[in-house]
Amino acid sequence: MSDKSLAQQLSEGFQELPGVGPRQAQRFVYALLEKEESFLKNFAALITALPGQIKRCEQCFWAFEGRTRLCQFCGDPQRDAHKLLIVERDTDVTNIERATGYSGKYFVLGGSVSPTRTDPQKELRLKELYHAVSTRPIGELILALSATSEGETTGIYIERIMDKLQKKQQFRITRLGRGLSSGAELEYSDGDTLKHAFANRA
Amino acid sequence: MSDKSLAQQLSEGFQELPGVGPRQAQRFVYALLEKEESFLKNFAALITALPGQIKRCEQCFWAFEGRTRLCQFCGDPQRDAHKLLIVERDTDVTNIERATGYSGKYFVLGGSVSPTRTDPQKELRLKELYHAVSTRPIGELILALSATSEGETTGIYIERIMDKLQKKQQFRITRLGRGLSSGAELEYSDGDTLKHAFANRA
Amino acid sequence: MSDKSLAQQLSEGFQELPGVGPRQAQRFVYALLEKEESFLKNFAALITALPGQIKRCEQCFWAFEGRTRLCQFCGDPQRDAHKLLIVERDTDVTNIERATGYSGKYFVLGGSVSPTRTDPQKELRLKELYHAVSTRPIGELILALSATSEGETTGIYIERIMDKLQKKQQFRITRLGRGLSSGAELEYSDGDTLKHAFANRA
Amino acid sequence: MSDKSLAQQLSEGFQELPGVGPRQAQRFVYALLEKEESFLKNFAALITALPGQIKRCEQCFWAFEGRTRLCQFCGDPQRDAHKLLIVERDTDVTNIERATGYSGKYFVLGGSVSPTRTDPQKELRLKELYHAVSTRPIGELILALSATSEGETTGIYIERIMDKLQKKQQFRITRLGRGLSSGAELEYSDGDTLKHAFANRA
Repeated sequence: MSDKSLAQQLSEGFQELPGVGPRQAQRFVYALLEKEESFLKNFAALITALPGQIKRCEQCFWAFEGRTRLCQFCGDPQRDAHKLLIVERDTDVTNIERATGYSGKYFVLGGSVSPTRTDPQKELRLKELYHAVSTRPIGELILALSATSEGETTGIYIERIMDKLQKKQQFRITRLGRGLSSGAELEYSDGDTLKHAFANRA
Repeated sequence: MSDKSLAQQLSEGFQELPGVGPRQAQRFVYALLEKEESFLKNFAALITALPGQIKRCEQCFWAFEGRTRLCQFCGDPQRDAHKLLIVERDTDVTNIERATGYSGKYFVLGGSVSPTRTDPQKELRLKELYHAVSTRPIGELILALSATSEGETTGIYIERIMDKLQKKQQFRITRLGRGLSSGAELEYSDGDTLKHAFANRA
Repeated sequence: MSDKSLAQQLSEGFQELPGVGPRQAQRFVYALLEKEESFLKNFAALITALPGQIKRCEQCFWAFEGRTRLCQFCGDPQRDAHKLLIVERDTDVTNIERATGYSGKYFVLGGSVSPTRTDPQKELRLKELYHAVSTRPIGELILALSATSEGETTGIYIERIMDKLQKKQQFRITRLGRGLSSGAELEYSDGDTLKHAFANRA
Repeated sequence: MSDKSLAQQLSEGFQELPGVGPRQAQRFVYALLEKEESFLKNFAALITALPGQIKRCEQCFWAFEGRTRLCQFCGDPQRDAHKLLIVERDTDVTNIERATGYSGKYFVLGGSVSPTRTDPQKELRLKELYHAVSTRPIGELILALSATSEGETTGIYIERIMDKLQKKQQFRITRLGRGLSSGAELEYSDGDTLKHAFANRA
């Protein structure tokens, strides 16, 4: 029913994906044209099945595949419920799980506090975070946020929200270590990184 | 029926698109998760509809949308049939049509002759090109190919195939002009580009 | 007599070179520290000898090494004096001489007309160019300028200055060819480049 | 006395500086040509004066300007002699001094242990380091090395050399903190960096 051509509509769909501009979107459309019909049918079916098969955990809000109420981390009684690690994005959970030996619980905030957000309270899961922390025997709250101004603002924001709870429940709030990232040469490291790397020497 | 998770399968689907690696594919999947169900349904429908709605022109092999046998260029009696412009890819047709005042016909080869192709005769539309040229009153055959070694090899390959036809039908074979591309600074231009730019001065 | 340290002064000297910032300048100073004293003496002697040994040709203003009034191109009676190729920078002469078979004369303008120049007449050798053209039997004036807005503005500027001379002496003004630079892929070429490449096909 | 032109020799001199290739060197030469003779004389004088005015501290081997035997850090009785911070390069001293509040002593190794060095013992100041540590009341030896494989190999090398001294004198060996460098986004951080950032949370 649209005036736009199908290729144009499909290209606009691809442009909704992060980092895809008109040229790349057009190339994606032409690439799909070269695919077998069976590939396209399967690909489309996977996309349609996405909301039914992947859902957000009721406790940590991580997007996972399954029919259970809770994700594999929240549902696992072996994982240390005294630790809660807060991330901005779904993908951070997978990366931290793969890279570290972390065995506590997660919480997915859904984004960061940034100057472009008019109402962080609504757009991020800050109320849900407050609720999660207030109803659990937390010992350590780990802010696993980016070392950017957005990440730092988000951290300050969360600390402020947690202020009273922290005094009452007496948990620690920790942040990811700052310092030299892997592959960093001393000569080309900025002053702020040097400062942290020096302070966090061990 | 697959052992792989839906997110994994979808990520692998995205990785079939040009230039998409595992990380970007994962980000695409998470981005789709944030979309409304109506967007996903529509996006999937567009993908499934692609092969039915877009087909290749029987004459020039350009992928176009429509129910006609011929694309808008081949079916247009106003366009100069004495000129045939050969491109590697579908997208080149759109770009040349947008940038130049070309009013002749096109032919989409489907790729370039490169060291990785074992059988260019089969993988590219070289027979179809021969047929197209031999059955038409061609005056100029324009090789609109990349200024890369693949593009040059493809050009030489086509010239060889056209050798007898050209003597019989007496058409010209031309190539896109070489020289300074827009924005090029003289100081940073390589010797080959300078040589062409000097030779093609006007 | 300066309050600044020697290393600081030397670093500032290096920062006068094109594209050298404070960090690279500092690295240059430390690199010199590792050199033998004989290298430093020789290097310093070369720098001091520069103005005495390299001078500008009285005709084309190209910087060359020698004791003659004219550079090797202006002094060579074999080179075609009917052709005059105008470049912005000294280095362009060397590059064009190396890449092309050009056998005419050169003229070094000393820069380009750009929005940051308040008085191109004074800062560039435009009067000298006018004089050179008006006193010679020119057949072709070749504008070998960058394919940038500065290069184009410079070209228009020169054409305007040459307007009357051209009518009187009846020479051609040519520009370097525009088109695909070496290595350019058709798919990633901008519209302006495609337009020129198509128009200049041959 | 050389067959090479002065410009060529000067260009080769510039190519001895770190990161300078033939094209940039040529541009440096042409840039010097545009400078006043007084600038060139002063620049050359600074280069010749370098070895006389800048010397290496007899204790830490840092290159400094002055007539004293010891640099401003080694000669300062206020600085904590129980701490010794080891860096690869002169420039690291300046950067760490500027970025951190470090108030101990330094030691400049002169490079890193890498596969291309055939004899680190000779090329780096490892004997001198051993001597420095063995004759002082060290409490903490800080390895301020790059987070690269060269930096890590250098660290292991130094630890091995210090093994007996450390047992005898009972000092700590520390390394710069690893983690998120400033500006690092969690999503784009590699697994190794995440592992360190998580382990070093605080």
